[in-house]
Amino acid sequence: MRRIFYFLLLLFFSSTVFAQLNQNGKIAIAIHGGAGTIKREDMSPEREAEYRAKLEEALKAGHQVLENGGSSLNAVVAAIQIMEESPLFNAGKGAVFTNEVKNELDAAIMDGKTRNAGTVAGISTVKSPVAAARVVMENSPHVMMIGQGAEQFAEEQGLEMVDPSYFFTDRRYEQLQRIKDTEQQQLEHDGDKDSGDRRPGDQREGMLDEKFPDRKFGTVGAVALDQEGNLAAATSTGGMTNKRYGRVGDVPIIGAGTYADNTTCAVSATGHGEYFIRSVVAYDIAALMKYKGLSLKEAGEEVVKDKLVKMGGGGGVISIDAQGNIAMPFNTAGMYRASISPGGEMYIGIYEDE
Amino acid sequence: MRRIFYFLLLLFFSSTVFAQLNQNGKIAIAIHGGAGTIKREDMSPEREAEYRAKLEEALKAGHQVLENGGSSLNAVVAAIQIMEESPLFNAGKGAVFTNEVKNELDAAIMDGKTRNAGTVAGISTVKSPVAAARVVMENSPHVMMIGQGAEQFAEEQGLEMVDPSYFFTDRRYEQLQRIKDTEQQQLEHDGDKDSGDRRPGDQREGMLDEKFPDRKFGTVGAVALDQEGNLAAATSTGGMTNKRYGRVGDVPIIGAGTYADNTTCAVSATGHGEYFIRSVVAYDIAALMKYKGLSLKEAGEEVVKDKLVKMGGGGGVISIDAQGNIAMPFNTAGMYRASISPGGEMYIGIYEDE
Repeated sequence: MRRIFYFLLLLFFSSTVFAQLNQNGKIAIAIHGGAGTIKREDMSPEREAEYRAKLEEALKAGHQVLENGGSSLNAVVAAIQIMEESPLFNAGKGAVFTNEVKNELDAAIMDGKTRNAGTVAGISTVKSPVAAARVVMENSPHVMMIGQGAEQFAEEQGLEMVDPSYFFTDRRYEQLQRIKDTEQQQLEHDGDKDSGDRRPGDQREGMLDEKFPDRKFGTVGAVALDQEGNLAAATSTGGMTNKRYGRVGDVPIIGAGTYADNTTCAVSATGHGEYFIRSVVAYDIAALMKYKGLSLKEAGEEVVKDKLVKMGGGGGVISIDAQGNIAMPFNTAGMYRASISPGGEMYIGIYEDE
Repeated sequence: MRRIFYFLLLLFFSSTVFAQLNQNGKIAIAIHGGAGTIKREDMSPEREAEYRAKLEEALKAGHQVLENGGSSLNAVVAAIQIMEESPLFNAGKGAVFTNEVKNELDAAIMDGKTRNAGTVAGISTVKSPVAAARVVMENSPHVMMIGQGAEQFAEEQGLEMVDPSYFFTDRRYEQLQRIKDTEQQQLEHDGDKDSGDRRPGDQREGMLDEKFPDRKFGTVGAVALDQEGNLAAATSTGGMTNKRYGRVGDVPIIGAGTYADNTTCAVSATGHGEYFIRSVVAYDIAALMKYKGLSLKEAGEEVVKDKLVKMGGGGGVISIDAQGNIAMPFNTAGMYRASISPGGEMYIGIYEDE
C-alpha cells in the first residue's frame, strides 16, 4: 500500500515538473500576408500604414490567445481570421477572382502535437476557410475535403455560411478585368482571336505574370508556439487571379504550404504554389532539421533562398521551432510579415531591407 | 581553327560516352494494385489467378515501353491504364462508390527528371484519370486541378471522356450497399435513428473498417526507370467506399502518395490515405535517402514498417531508385505487387510471405 502511495506521489511530482518545463512561458507567433513583387515605390504611405496596422492587429490577436494560456491552434486561427476578414489580403474577403468571376478558397491547418491536419479546397460559401479546415481536422476522420462536399460538411458542423457575394471586393474585380483585358490584347496581338484557344502553358502566361506580379500571391498564414510547447501552422488563400480549371495551389497540400510537428517546426508558405508543391517546401524544412541537424534558420534559407530560387519558385515562408525561434525567409522583393518572439519583441516588415 | 576542331571532337566523344553510361540498358519497373487485409483464406484460387494475370499484363505493358527505349513516364501510364480498365482494382473502372453512389477519381504523376508533376481530384467523366494528371503536368502551368474544372481541361486536351456510368460495377455497388446497411444497423443499435446525425469522426467509423477491411484500399500505382536514367511515379484511385464530403486521400498529394526525383527515388503509395498525407510518406523516403544516406530499402522500411505503424497507418509503397533497385515494403496482410528488375527477373506477389 505504502509503495503505491510513494509511486503515486512520484508520479504527481514528475508530471508537475514536466508541466513546469513546458510552461516556462515560452510563447511566440509569426504571421504572413503574402509575398511578391512588393516595392516601396509602388506603395502609397496610406496603403502601407493600412497593411502594417492590420498585420499588427492579427499578430496581437494571436499572441493574446497564447498569453492567456490558449493553444497554438487557437492562436493561429485567431490571427488568420482577422486577415481573412480584411480585404487587404488574398484570403477570405478580398480573395482574388477566378476566370469565371468566382472566389474559390483553400485553407489548411496542422497540429504539431498530434500531426493531425485538415484542409479544404475550392470552397465558396464558408465565411472562414481556416475554420472549415479546422473542423475537417477535429471532427472528421479525413484530412482533405474539396468543393461542395467540404461546404456541406462545414455547414453540418455549424460554421457560418455566406453567400458567395460576401467575398466580392471592387479591387479584386478590377484586377481580374485588367488581367482579362491584357490577355485579350495579347491574344489579338498574336493574331489569335479565339481566347478559348489559349493554353495556360504557353508563353503568354509568363508575360502576364510580369504585368501583374501579385496575381499569384497574397496568401495569409500563421505559426505559433504555446505554453504547453505545442506548435501549430495554418494557411488560407484565394489562390491565383483569373485561375481556371479548378486549379489548387500549395496551401491545402500538407507538406507543401502547411506543416507542423513539435519535434521540428511549424511552417506556413506563400508564393508560386506549383513550385512549392513540387519542392514539398514545408516538410523539406522539417526534414533538413530532423535528418541533417540544420537549425530552423539554416533549413529555411536552404529551401527558400537556394533550392526554390534554382527552380524558379518565388515566395517565402514563416516558421517557428519548439524553442520559439522564428525564421521568415523569402526570395521575392517583399513579404508582409510580423512576429512576436518569446522575449516579447514585436517585428513588422514588408520589404526585403527591414 | 584546329583547336576548335579538337574541342568539338572531344565534346562529341564525351557526350557519346555519357549517353552510353545512361543507356547501359538498366531499366526496371514496379507496380501495385493496392494493399490491405488480403488473406489467402479469403481468396478463391480463380480470383487470385485473375489478380496475378492482370498484374503481369500491366507490368509487361510498362516494361515493353522501357525495352523499346520509351520514357519512364510512358511506362508508368501504360501499366496503370491496364489496371484502370480492369474492374479488379479500385481505380478507373472498378472504382468504389461514394455515399452518393458516384465514382470520384483521383490521380497523380511526377517526372523525376524535371520534378514536374500533375494531379487531379474528384473527377467522374475522364476515362483515364492518370492521363488527366499527365495533361495537367505537361500542358498546363498548374500541378493540381479538381472537380469540373479538371474535367473541362481534360476534355479540351482531347482526352477520352465517358459517362459517369462507365465506372459502375456490380461488385462495388453491392459493396457500398453492404456498408450502408451495416452503418444503418449500427446507428439503430446505438439508438440513433437519424443517419444524418452520424459524425464521420466517431467510433463507428473504426468498427466499420474492421468489417470492411478493403474499403480504403485498392489504389493502383507504378514506378519506373528508363534507359535515359529517368525515374517516374504515378498513382490512380477511386478513394474510399462510402466516402462523403468530397474527401480526397493521399494519391493526388505530391509528396504523400506520389513522388519522383532522379537524385533519390520514385514512390507510389497505397493505404489509409489520411496517415500517408500527415506523414508525407513518399517524400519522407526520398528525404531519408538524401539527407541521412539511407538506401531505398532502409528508407522505405523506416517509413512504412516503423513510422506509419506507430501512427496507425496501414498500407505500403512501391519504390525504385536511379540504379534500378526496387523496394516494396508494406505493413498490411497483403499488397498486390509486381516488378521486373534490371536483370529481367519478374516477381509477382500478393501475401506477406511470398
